[in-house]
Amino acid sequence: MLGDVAKGASGEFAAIERIRVELTRRFPAPPSGETWIGDDAAVLIEGTGYRLLATDLTVAGVHADLEVMSLADLGWRAMVSALSDIAAMGGSPRHALVGVAGPPSTDLDLLYEGLGSAAASHGCPVVGGDLSTAGQLVVAVTVTGRVDEAPPPVLRSGARPGDAIFVTGALGASAAGLRVLRSPPRTMEPAGNGDRYGADASLVEAHVRPTARVEEGSVARRAGVDAMIDVSDGLSADLGHLAEASGVGVEIDLVPVSRGASEEEALGGGEDYELVMATRQQDRLIRAFEEAGLRAPIRIGTCTSDPSSRTLRGETLPRMGFEHPWGRGR
Amino acid sequence: MLGDVAKGASGEFAAIERIRVELTRRFPAPPSGETWIGDDAAVLIEGTGYRLLATDLTVAGVHADLEVMSLADLGWRAMVSALSDIAAMGGSPRHALVGVAGPPSTDLDLLYEGLGSAAASHGCPVVGGDLSTAGQLVVAVTVTGRVDEAPPPVLRSGARPGDAIFVTGALGASAAGLRVLRSPPRTMEPAGNGDRYGADASLVEAHVRPTARVEEGSVARRAGVDAMIDVSDGLSADLGHLAEASGVGVEIDLVPVSRGASEEEALGGGEDYELVMATRQQDRLIRAFEEAGLRAPIRIGTCTSDPSSRTLRGETLPRMGFEHPWGRGR
Repeated sequence: MLGDVAKGASGEFAAIERIRVELTRRFPAPPSGETWIGDDAAVLIEGTGYRLLATDLTVAGVHADLEVMSLADLGWRAMVSALSDIAAMGGSPRHALVGVAGPPSTDLDLLYEGLGSAAASHGCPVVGGDLSTAGQLVVAVTVTGRVDEAPPPVLRSGARPGDAIFVTGALGASAAGLRVLRSPPRTMEPAGNGDRYGADASLVEAHVRPTARVEEGSVARRAGVDAMIDVSDGLSADLGHLAEASGVGVEIDLVPVSRGASEEEALGGGEDYELVMATRQQDRLIRAFEEAGLRAPIRIGTCTSDPSSRTLRGETLPRMGFEHPWGRGR
Repeated sequence: MLGDVAKGASGEFAAIERIRVELTRRFPAPPSGETWIGDDAAVLIEGTGYRLLATDLTVAGVHADLEVMSLADLGWRAMVSALSDIAAMGGSPRHALVGVAGPPSTDLDLLYEGLGSAAASHGCPVVGGDLSTAGQLVVAVTVTGRVDEAPPPVLRSGARPGDAIFVTGALGASAAGLRVLRSPPRTMEPAGNGDRYGADASLVEAHVRPTARVEEGSVARRAGVDAMIDVSDGLSADLGHLAEASGVGVEIDLVPVSRGASEEEALGGGEDYELVMATRQQDRLIRAFEEAGLRAPIRIGTCTSDPSSRTLRGETLPRMGFEHPWGRGR
């Protein structure tokens, strides 16, 4: 989604800010309680609850390397990246639309197998879309979601100084999985696809078949967290988005790293789709996850009052993570 | 939108049919009263009315020629093509999401100026989206719409033998406008952009700044039309989609051609975004348009009982219009 605003930054985030300004001046302000551009998903009041809307692009060669994964994997990842935007608001996915632009030789059956199976495994039927030829494969997935009961969807902008920061799981497995996929095959290994990646199979799986944390997001919302975001660009970047939107600083004490991944992969890798949550009610959050039978959330740090301060174990939190190299425009 | 199903055809429409089958088997059947893949927009029951969802792709070099139009024009056209899918169901557009994948050098300010102004002029705020780099510019616009009062959204599949077929206006101006844009400049003309295209200016305008017939679609729905579709692929192709979905034949007596366009452009050009309507209550339709202060709809023919018959003034209706050259896949 068109997300955060990194003031003074160049590239993608500055471009998004210019777009936000351009669009905002054309339309009336959102009704009270609605959030348009600026979060993982748009939040719209509908009936007695909320409608969520998110669009996510997956571009072959940018978000997905077809040298090391199949079109079905790309389709799965494209669907999950959009579903995760709904999860990050604490919503339930309802319907998906899929736009596919790509070369005429693209194996659509394989691509839609991945798109469809990811959607089905998250309980979100694909109800429409569009198809076009293009020189490069671009998949645009739109997902609608709902929040039917209080509290409302969780924004990334609600964190306050003193909030404890949690993640739903260890990070870096997706980036490590891509590293494994790109490594030259180890010739001493026995043949056979089954254990092709041996102990690294779970890392590869994390990269090609990630999961959107829909239940975790919903439980966190109901446990009253103040702010939430999914780890799509990398922990460092996504923490930055949350801190920026909330006007807080962050002190990180601990980076939970997936087995087989490095801390750098955990901080900068992204696409793990774990959720970052900020809350002043940490006992309530831990208990809610336990009662729902979910893995215990991991406390990684605290929100502070100085928005200019982002630290990791007392040092400056390294700026890492993915940003598209957009120019300055005209 | 993922639209019609041309049985036995190759290319785009056959690919869409395979996708529909693949997706349909993965999900439960739509609840009664809902329509998923197969029309201009998905129709979902929501509260006491209906939610409409449509995604439309615009690819530079496929749907829009940047040699002859600006990025602002491309943006405008991308937005209108999605808005028109909502109009074709008789719905009111509510919110838009925009996904843009393109080269880092793309002038996003100009592109969003077109996207935003088209959305604003149709009363549909842009509430979110996504941005990515890609080798070729692809714009994916998703529009949500509503139908709040009876009758329900109008499908393309409801036409019956004996129905009169109407269009909301003359056709071919968009294709003729593209022809004008691609013609070498006439050197005897006086300089100055103001009258660069002289008498052809309205054709150029029709190509670069089309309008979605939102009010016409809504009035037609309330006047009880049986079936409706927008002219996006060309009258011949879109009539074929309506006839195919409805299981009827069509007898066309008259092709209303825009001044300055040819009948071939009217039949095959597409992107006029006029609406084709089938109704057994033609007096009611004409009166409803008159009472709403809209241009009178033009009767062009009749639906027949033989689905294999599509005629124009007694001859076989030529198969024309745009279809993406998708392969057979695996």
